[in-house]
Amino acid sequence: MKERPSRREVLGGAGLLAVAGAAAAVVGGCSSDASTKTAAVGAEPDIVAFHGANQAGILTPPQQRLVFASFDLLTSDRPALETLLRSWTAAAALLTAGKPIGPVEPANAAAAPTDTGEALELSASRLTVTVGLGRSVFVDAHGRDRLGLAHRLPAPLVDLPPFGGGENLDPARSGGDIALQCCADDAAVAFHAFHNLTRIAHDVAAVRWTQLGFGRASSTGVQSTPRNLQGFKDGTNNLDTTDAALMRDNVWVGAADTPKWMEGGTYMVTRRIRMRLEHWDRSAISDQEATIGRAKISGAPLGSRDEHDTPALAALGPDGKPVIPAGAHIRLAAPSENNGLRILRRGYSFSDGIDPVSGELDAGLFFVAFQRDPRRQFIPLQQRLALHDALNEYIEHEGSAVFAVLPGAAENASLGGPLFA
Amino acid sequence: MKERPSRREVLGGAGLLAVAGAAAAVVGGCSSDASTKTAAVGAEPDIVAFHGANQAGILTPPQQRLVFASFDLLTSDRPALETLLRSWTAAAALLTAGKPIGPVEPANAAAAPTDTGEALELSASRLTVTVGLGRSVFVDAHGRDRLGLAHRLPAPLVDLPPFGGGENLDPARSGGDIALQCCADDAAVAFHAFHNLTRIAHDVAAVRWTQLGFGRASSTGVQSTPRNLQGFKDGTNNLDTTDAALMRDNVWVGAADTPKWMEGGTYMVTRRIRMRLEHWDRSAISDQEATIGRAKISGAPLGSRDEHDTPALAALGPDGKPVIPAGAHIRLAAPSENNGLRILRRGYSFSDGIDPVSGELDAGLFFVAFQRDPRRQFIPLQQRLALHDALNEYIEHEGSAVFAVLPGAAENASLGGPLFA
Repeated sequence: MKERPSRREVLGGAGLLAVAGAAAAVVGGCSSDASTKTAAVGAEPDIVAFHGANQAGILTPPQQRLVFASFDLLTSDRPALETLLRSWTAAAALLTAGKPIGPVEPANAAAAPTDTGEALELSASRLTVTVGLGRSVFVDAHGRDRLGLAHRLPAPLVDLPPFGGGENLDPARSGGDIALQCCADDAAVAFHAFHNLTRIAHDVAAVRWTQLGFGRASSTGVQSTPRNLQGFKDGTNNLDTTDAALMRDNVWVGAADTPKWMEGGTYMVTRRIRMRLEHWDRSAISDQEATIGRAKISGAPLGSRDEHDTPALAALGPDGKPVIPAGAHIRLAAPSENNGLRILRRGYSFSDGIDPVSGELDAGLFFVAFQRDPRRQFIPLQQRLALHDALNEYIEHEGSAVFAVLPGAAENASLGGPLFA
Repeated sequence: MKERPSRREVLGGAGLLAVAGAAAAVVGGCSSDASTKTAAVGAEPDIVAFHGANQAGILTPPQQRLVFASFDLLTSDRPALETLLRSWTAAAALLTAGKPIGPVEPANAAAAPTDTGEALELSASRLTVTVGLGRSVFVDAHGRDRLGLAHRLPAPLVDLPPFGGGENLDPARSGGDIALQCCADDAAVAFHAFHNLTRIAHDVAAVRWTQLGFGRASSTGVQSTPRNLQGFKDGTNNLDTTDAALMRDNVWVGAADTPKWMEGGTYMVTRRIRMRLEHWDRSAISDQEATIGRAKISGAPLGSRDEHDTPALAALGPDGKPVIPAGAHIRLAAPSENNGLRILRRGYSFSDGIDPVSGELDAGLFFVAFQRDPRRQFIPLQQRLALHDALNEYIEHEGSAVFAVLPGAAENASLGGPLFA
């Protein structure tokens, strides 16, 4: 493929030096060596590589903004899906490199622009595009082959069982055939990717539901654990994505796993978890901390001093009761209490205005987790949480989906290639 | 008032040096002088002053994120409104300084936290909080006095007339008694302000509608005009907020204006403008450019070379027709075509997922404009646009509101003070 110009090169060279200098300052920190700025021109330090054995957007340190979309396939034509994935691959490679996907001002005045243009002048902003397929691509609700891919259905790609415990799923916010996760540090860049990939899907897949999210902003400079909308640190005990062995054991589908075509892929579970913030906000600090099992400000496990201290699950207080209560969220979610089960969480806070029925805040956590096999990881963990988690009083699971996240694509290869091979 | 610690000081000194250094790098650019970092400790360079003759969030260069909320008053008790505005003033002064509004971990274990805590560790992020009052605070829909403030109704605080031209207003997304505009460079900081101010309003005012928005991200480093979701530069001809005479003439209520209590205030018009993006995206580039009156990439007026060239409204093409068509948006909105009328626009893009009815993108522009008198500024301008603007084919006004933005509060004074004096 002929190398296309970056979005900024489309606009001529003016201002490029300033841009690259600013980006270098944000991403790489300050340097006293002025030559660093010059070297950064054109280096685009905020590009996350698209091609590779695994898709990006999984181990990538979370960007500030999420646009998540679930699509329904409009066709039972397998080649149409294959073509869509090939088109998305080509477009995503350009988008994540900060390039337009085609002409913004086509030479033919009667033609519509290929790229919608709203991200011109914006940098790549660490955009990642991550694609997955739902079980319904392989078999329909009655187990019938849908696109001639039933024999390729991965066994781990199951429908989740009902969990109870504050689960109240809205079908309009659940499931779907194709997952598209666009994350970027710039909301306009994430929207632009979603917008243009949705245009490409036209006639083959239509958006079923979307979820926008926000996370930790880079402006803080603090590398500590982000807080969720309940005000607690969330993710203290999350998997260390720089530990390759942990990722191999808990996240990536390996060479020994089946099906073969999923090697380098993973399984994504999404849950739209509404927080009953009005209820939570009125609760005593002691109740909040007993519910989570951590101190609110420090994030330390109850009875410990520091956030990263191992929770003293066996410790008893003067009253003879566990210092970390039996129903505390961190006790129930602890790997030591779950046969060592681990999942990689990569969720975002959401705020979607006001619930039109209750008048309460429609806000919470869009939970996203990656794992090698939901049957061994998310499902038993969530069954335990649904039964016993004290947090259930303050949350409601409103949306749910599971997707097989495709293996990454090498240069000149397409997402989904091994599936159709 | 006793000085409260910043959100970061609440957490102890650890990491403060790194934080301030990073913030300085982001906000102020790099310095080769290491002493700058030390000097920046505690300097909080991303604080926008709250107190002053005018409220912030009007001339403030737009932050990346908007959380806008319109509230309905639940009471006809005037002192309750006065108290709410006083409480909001005190809280907003703390929030905009990057401080919690009260204990996150109250000493009394049975007490609920005062500050909900999700913005701990985050910097002030240029947060601004801007408050306005709707006409309905002064008189109800039948013109009856509501809180004993009817005699204080500002004449410019009118209900907007019906405009036609693609107007299809949803009452659930229009009007309201109190406007709360929270803008910040960090989505979590803007949400936290909205969240905590909404808690304070409890029992006195309830959220009627909200709108989240996003704008230009600072990561670009380019100071050029941002683009809207149609991919065009939007705001090229906006008022220069650094021109005090322009602001005095067009934005601020002056000493000679009535009512006296509004001196230093302004009037805000909000319009939720949905863009029919699927329709727009399929339109020929020539149609798009004729609709706006500008080239898409450069932003130059048709027939001109540079974005900031004065539109050649009188120029005719070889075919004898105006180069900038009669219905082009920039022609109809040009001050020269509107008796010199100017408004200060400060809108944000929005993306709220999918329209459940049409399945199309629910995205567009949350238009926010400030002016001295909507009767002379927004209304005649919009009447002209509604009749003739070629853009009407591609947009729909779905929400609308007008608010009297209160004058700023001096230190130790309260928003709304002059109104109740």
